[in-house]
Amino acid sequence: MAGHVSDAVIRRLPGYYRHLRELESAGVEQISSQELGERMHLTPSQIRQDINCFGGFGRQGYGYKVSDLKMHIGEILGLDREHTEIIVGAGNIGCAIAKYPTFQREGFRPLAMFDNDPEKVGVPVGDIPVYSMEEMPNFLKENTPDIAVLALPRRVAQEALDKLYACGIRAVWNFAPTDLTHPDDMLVVNVHLTDSLQTLTYHMAHRNEENSK
Amino acid sequence: MAGHVSDAVIRRLPGYYRHLRELESAGVEQISSQELGERMHLTPSQIRQDINCFGGFGRQGYGYKVSDLKMHIGEILGLDREHTEIIVGAGNIGCAIAKYPTFQREGFRPLAMFDNDPEKVGVPVGDIPVYSMEEMPNFLKENTPDIAVLALPRRVAQEALDKLYACGIRAVWNFAPTDLTHPDDMLVVNVHLTDSLQTLTYHMAHRNEENSK
Repeated sequence: MAGHVSDAVIRRLPGYYRHLRELESAGVEQISSQELGERMHLTPSQIRQDINCFGGFGRQGYGYKVSDLKMHIGEILGLDREHTEIIVGAGNIGCAIAKYPTFQREGFRPLAMFDNDPEKVGVPVGDIPVYSMEEMPNFLKENTPDIAVLALPRRVAQEALDKLYACGIRAVWNFAPTDLTHPDDMLVVNVHLTDSLQTLTYHMAHRNEENSK
Repeated sequence: MAGHVSDAVIRRLPGYYRHLRELESAGVEQISSQELGERMHLTPSQIRQDINCFGGFGRQGYGYKVSDLKMHIGEILGLDREHTEIIVGAGNIGCAIAKYPTFQREGFRPLAMFDNDPEKVGVPVGDIPVYSMEEMPNFLKENTPDIAVLALPRRVAQEALDKLYACGIRAVWNFAPTDLTHPDDMLVVNVHLTDSLQTLTYHMAHRNEENSK
């Protein structure tokens, strides 16, 4: 694999993977940087530059082999292996993630869910067992999930994150609507749903100004 | 309000709003650019520049009044008014969004949900009625929601988006894991959950390289 990959390229990688997967499902075998660029709203030269950046793969005038490029980008994204996960919080978001079909297809396997609500504990979500938060440290002595999904309300999220760190978890996908404090050796990627919705309302509120520019 | 606001500032606005709301709940009345910068991992001069950009508000040496600044940013984000919405797709994600408490607190009011599954149609989610997709055009003749939340599988998302456009919807919050094609006068903001999760696995796969840099 190639040398240093810039943050901008890293941000675009999942988009490449998504488009290539769609092309593969549609039976497309070969694609030019021109065509891929049109799909992704990038210039052909940007596409070529990106793909060179993670190791090349095209042949001048032939474009890219869709399945090879998809596999290669999947490897860079770490998708060539299975990831196990626990889901902390068995509310609506936690359950939606637990049941999201795409994640299981892409090799994400939930081991257990944890919640404080006695009505939820003991009632499996699909085939995923739900344990109490108190059982988490013991569970994490015997199991070493790769990822913890944090789907708790804001006010209890930091405490749960600290607990996860103490139990050895080093990668967290956070849905709590807050920025958590964590040690440098813990990876935290946030899904701030409210931020995304507010981006929409911002553009709605300023649509007329933007159109009149 | 100030003149042109750059995309980078727009992207940071929801973060400002989130931090200021947390500060306000914590009873903080006044904050310096230094302190706000530490919370948000931005430099004080970046903070001052951003806030000047949307109309100023601080006094040299006094910092910012938390509740005023929060209200001002809320207005810029269009949060000073209620937004009505419909949710297309009553699966796990659609239902999680329907029940998400933060959205209702921030003035987002779901009017109805739509789904093709006969087992879901007619069974309200909380107090939100669920109608069949066929009923959508008629519903949208009598109701004019500000936003449609699209929470459908990839293969039916484009068709639903086209239908929404034909029914007069011009703002969509899309959870379908695909990039949809839409006319220029329709706003579409995507939440690509898989992309976010893959950002996490990318950093997990490259953690050792990154640490050894």
